[in-house]
Amino acid sequence: MTSGIVTLITDFGRGEPYVAAIKGVILGLNSQVRLVDVSHEVASQDVLEAALLLDQAWTYFPAGSVHLVVVDPGVGTERRRLALLSRGSLFVGPDNGCLSAALPPEARALRRPGEAYSARPTTTPGDVVAVSIENEALMRRPVSATFEGRDIFAPVAAALSRGLPVQDLGPRVDGIVAFPAFRAPRAGESIEGLVVRVDRFGNLITDIRAEDLGPSPAFSVAGRRLEGIASTYARAASPAAIIGSAGLVEIALSGGSAAEELGVGRGERVTVTSARR
Amino acid sequence: MTSGIVTLITDFGRGEPYVAAIKGVILGLNSQVRLVDVSHEVASQDVLEAALLLDQAWTYFPAGSVHLVVVDPGVGTERRRLALLSRGSLFVGPDNGCLSAALPPEARALRRPGEAYSARPTTTPGDVVAVSIENEALMRRPVSATFEGRDIFAPVAAALSRGLPVQDLGPRVDGIVAFPAFRAPRAGESIEGLVVRVDRFGNLITDIRAEDLGPSPAFSVAGRRLEGIASTYARAASPAAIIGSAGLVEIALSGGSAAEELGVGRGERVTVTSARR
Amino acid sequence: MTSGIVTLITDFGRGEPYVAAIKGVILGLNSQVRLVDVSHEVASQDVLEAALLLDQAWTYFPAGSVHLVVVDPGVGTERRRLALLSRGSLFVGPDNGCLSAALPPEARALRRPGEAYSARPTTTPGDVVAVSIENEALMRRPVSATFEGRDIFAPVAAALSRGLPVQDLGPRVDGIVAFPAFRAPRAGESIEGLVVRVDRFGNLITDIRAEDLGPSPAFSVAGRRLEGIASTYARAASPAAIIGSAGLVEIALSGGSAAEELGVGRGERVTVTSARR
Repeated sequence: MTSGIVTLITDFGRGEPYVAAIKGVILGLNSQVRLVDVSHEVASQDVLEAALLLDQAWTYFPAGSVHLVVVDPGVGTERRRLALLSRGSLFVGPDNGCLSAALPPEARALRRPGEAYSARPTTTPGDVVAVSIENEALMRRPVSATFEGRDIFAPVAAALSRGLPVQDLGPRVDGIVAFPAFRAPRAGESIEGLVVRVDRFGNLITDIRAEDLGPSPAFSVAGRRLEGIASTYARAASPAAIIGSAGLVEIALSGGSAAEELGVGRGERVTVTSARR
Repeated sequence: MTSGIVTLITDFGRGEPYVAAIKGVILGLNSQVRLVDVSHEVASQDVLEAALLLDQAWTYFPAGSVHLVVVDPGVGTERRRLALLSRGSLFVGPDNGCLSAALPPEARALRRPGEAYSARPTTTPGDVVAVSIENEALMRRPVSATFEGRDIFAPVAAALSRGLPVQDLGPRVDGIVAFPAFRAPRAGESIEGLVVRVDRFGNLITDIRAEDLGPSPAFSVAGRRLEGIASTYARAASPAAIIGSAGLVEIALSGGSAAEELGVGRGERVTVTSARR
Repeated sequence: MTSGIVTLITDFGRGEPYVAAIKGVILGLNSQVRLVDVSHEVASQDVLEAALLLDQAWTYFPAGSVHLVVVDPGVGTERRRLALLSRGSLFVGPDNGCLSAALPPEARALRRPGEAYSARPTTTPGDVVAVSIENEALMRRPVSATFEGRDIFAPVAAALSRGLPVQDLGPRVDGIVAFPAFRAPRAGESIEGLVVRVDRFGNLITDIRAEDLGPSPAFSVAGRRLEGIASTYARAASPAAIIGSAGLVEIALSGGSAAEELGVGRGERVTVTSARR
């Protein structure tokens, strides 16, 4: 059931001792664990960015992997700490939306046109086991009010990676805080997308899903009409839409930064006409 | 005795081939080793930062782990290379203070009020085994004058991670270069702390230990009187003291950078009145 | 034959989900693999930097390791994808020069004086097995036009790390695209070197090989005559040449940045007189 893998997403950065403390605690409890860093470069307390990274990374890992997210502006306060068994994998982190990807998209609300992404209470479907972590026997004592990642989430991830049933961590809950599905909504004849991330290359990652596009879709962003869909990055000689590796539309520019060229960033609206009916 | 884990602290950065060379050498000598990066982002040749990172990271790892620190302004010169067995763990690095945390705090001097941290010769207690690495049979030949991390420290760390007794590395020494204990001294009725690090969030990490505080302590920094102790980061609405995860007082600001707000950095004095008697 | 190790060089950065996707795919196919990051900080699409990093890193790993490089401006286009068995190790990546170090230096052209490094078709020697990856049974389906690292190169690296013979990946090819050997050419009595990298410390890494130097070599860069060869970084009180850990001449400055002090960067010419005959 368990793959023995624990992946990590935090906003701790790479120059701090915090990630090492978490890894030390996990290795002390499971000497055979395989630790994989997804990112520790999440912008400070940026829960949405963490949720998107988890969404784009977790599916590539074997079933039974544990995905630990510690981006936690409310550390030490009364928000819940969650563990979920969902879609064959395990998820651990605070109940603030960072674990949204644990829920299937159809269980999450759809963003409305004109709306930004914000996390909200969401009912967990019947085939998802979600628990509030309350089993104190698993925690490091005393629990630091500033570092639950080390004292609560790390030992829980270690225990799950050794096969502890998620039910042993605390009482079941029937809802978690989650972002809407990362899927741009329709507005009449068009799709109204948003830029949800700007990657290292300056590509604008949108929430427009490839399967929602109709034939010959036309994209506009920041008052500019883009070239149609380019088949490869190398062919995006001016900013063009491209189907990214996660099935989302990206705006890319070969050998340059589409973000700089267009002067836009996260939250920018990207409109598509000719959507699939 | 050995945990099979080697942790790494260097100032090599992540864009260089040097860390990979060290890991390749270690893996070639111990194919079963578990390598854990603590940080490779130490500021260039900043021995104090390396010492602090080691201090805050090593205790979370299982007994018998090897902690390798390569921050070495004197590489290729005649400073000693050290290996220590102390407090159940193993430490490897140059004799410049970066391994200070291998010595228990009570074996190290106390910083005096008004003084900055500087490393000095320190007698090792009787229960610490410290040796000067001189066993050439373990080194890669020829030893590069610019990369002893690869040619001396890496093979030594690998050998220790396989269980080689530290005594086999070279002659015992009875003192090493170490920083004072990271613990702010008293000055009359008050504690005179220093900011020793600024973390990624702009939190000011001081050397003031939680257990030295009296009831209702009052903090001042840069001529400004701070709010009392906040119980969580989320409650530090203006810059406030908080007990950090390592038991040190931090000055934090919820959703912002205390360092920017107060305009201070490393080396700034933080005074506490109402210390514990 | 296989060491079970896969090393990784990409230009994906550490804040993106792409490296994690590659690692997840590899772990799903070889749960026992040892993954080692060489660098993910290669400048965007900088194939020469990737080639240099591979050159300086791969030899420290045990024989039978797989070295995966994904720096691929032409992703999704018709350039070949390569796997090589050479010098006892395995190499995987696009055919754009990033795998140059898989070929022994004597199989590669020499840069001519005045010339910059550019990759060119190069015949593979008889003892190198080079194949064009075409075995679709090993690929993830469908192959993304923007992320062959995940869909082609990662599963191929995983298969090689489990012992799959390189010949099973596709048809043999008798030439690959490669950079000239990283070795500065002679120009009359002198050696005409280039700065090929600037490292994190501001050291200028040149392509001048230590074994090509004559007695008492004199270096000049940017119209400035340098001190002779310093034996250690600590002794380079003004910018001086030093024999770096990879056997290449570096220009270093103790406690400072030679690049800043001299105002030069990659591509700058460094001339040596008194070369070995």
